[in-house]
Amino acid sequence: MTREITSATNPFIKEVRALATSKKARQESGTFIIEGWRGIETLLTHESRQYKLETLVISEEWENDPRLPDHVDTVVLPDPLFAKVSDVKNAQGILGIVRPSPVPFEFFPDTGHYLLLDALRDPGNLGTLIRSAVGAGYDGILLYGDGVDPYNPKVIRSTMGSFAFANIWPIAHGDIDRMLSNGYELLATVGHGGENLYKTTFPKKTILAIGSEAHGLSTKLMQLADKKITIPLSATCESLNAAIAGSICMFQIKRG
Amino acid sequence: MTREITSATNPFIKEVRALATSKKARQESGTFIIEGWRGIETLLTHESRQYKLETLVISEEWENDPRLPDHVDTVVLPDPLFAKVSDVKNAQGILGIVRPSPVPFEFFPDTGHYLLLDALRDPGNLGTLIRSAVGAGYDGILLYGDGVDPYNPKVIRSTMGSFAFANIWPIAHGDIDRMLSNGYELLATVGHGGENLYKTTFPKKTILAIGSEAHGLSTKLMQLADKKITIPLSATCESLNAAIAGSICMFQIKRG
Repeated sequence: MTREITSATNPFIKEVRALATSKKARQESGTFIIEGWRGIETLLTHESRQYKLETLVISEEWENDPRLPDHVDTVVLPDPLFAKVSDVKNAQGILGIVRPSPVPFEFFPDTGHYLLLDALRDPGNLGTLIRSAVGAGYDGILLYGDGVDPYNPKVIRSTMGSFAFANIWPIAHGDIDRMLSNGYELLATVGHGGENLYKTTFPKKTILAIGSEAHGLSTKLMQLADKKITIPLSATCESLNAAIAGSICMFQIKRG
Repeated sequence: MTREITSATNPFIKEVRALATSKKARQESGTFIIEGWRGIETLLTHESRQYKLETLVISEEWENDPRLPDHVDTVVLPDPLFAKVSDVKNAQGILGIVRPSPVPFEFFPDTGHYLLLDALRDPGNLGTLIRSAVGAGYDGILLYGDGVDPYNPKVIRSTMGSFAFANIWPIAHGDIDRMLSNGYELLATVGHGGENLYKTTFPKKTILAIGSEAHGLSTKLMQLADKKITIPLSATCESLNAAIAGSICMFQIKRG
């Protein structure tokens, strides 16, 4: 069904804007926004049990685009009104409202690689790490502590569509304990003094923990860690970007 | 020398703003801006022949900060005026005007690792790659084609101070030819079909080429490449972020 909205005071405009800007609005509606064609195309071409594209919001130029599906409720906006709801500077004129169906947290008992993010704050870093985790074939991304909302539109955008293939779970302390009891090894990344990433061998069941940009890993996780690992850096470099460090470690660990 | 500016119509305000927003203004003045304490601290604590901190621009709260040097010309602005010249949302109230003294391009004849960026457009990606290149101990960053200005304030900010330790050169085709004649191997990163990064050994003289986010490597560079390399990715992942892919390759190649 396609309908047009031309009035800026239509409540729908306010609702979409709230989804882009407010975590509370996303939680209350149980939906989030994905902006740009690439992510929407990924949802349309790959069946996803976890994510349902509920509504498309498009500017007039998209109205007769043959790539758009017939079965998704579609709202057409004049360009100035689309610019109003859009979260990006140079909007492509298309966004989707997506309803996730979260699945309960579970982990593979025999072999598995998980990325644990401790209170990561930067949406670009989180989105990029999700993209890298999917690229490296990681089995899940565990969100620990008070970090950025994974349904923040900038996070979703930075995944470049990869969020559709990622298992992302908020987890509590007890979940980590269960994994450790099952034989998982918790690997803490530290800037200095850990084992050299490239001279370490890794088991088949790992949790790679990355700390927040400003504060690193929390004391509680550091105490639980089986091993601390460090990417060897030249003397003039204090640290790498969190998404870079996490991605380098993920690929290296999976190789053994 | 410290002076105060309180009028928004003072030409200095317009000059600083132009340095933040216009490549032409940076080229004409021969300076660029670095915003935030971290980068300025790096310049103050590490002698740099390449970069001279010419002027500090601070908001009033910084006025008596003991960390600031006496020997640098300093301009104090009221908060609202600082916000006007600042390039970031939550400004720290401090920025520096920096004069670079570019050194002519040169390369090590016997052993060396260089990163070649082909028309990279995203300032965050360029800054992050500079930071990673310094971390991995690369000998230089070669800018090829029509990419983002390395003195763009967002590039400088994303390096987190690392630009002070980086050798960054715009290069032309002839420079690459000279390196290849000297025995350097040009490694082209490609999304699919190259040699597996982790199953390849690398010589002691390499140029790692990363293509632009949208178009990849230009045909000309691709034809010159001695070897194409690929990061093995899971089937659901189309590609990694350019800064992530470049960083993973840089660290892996230097290890041999």
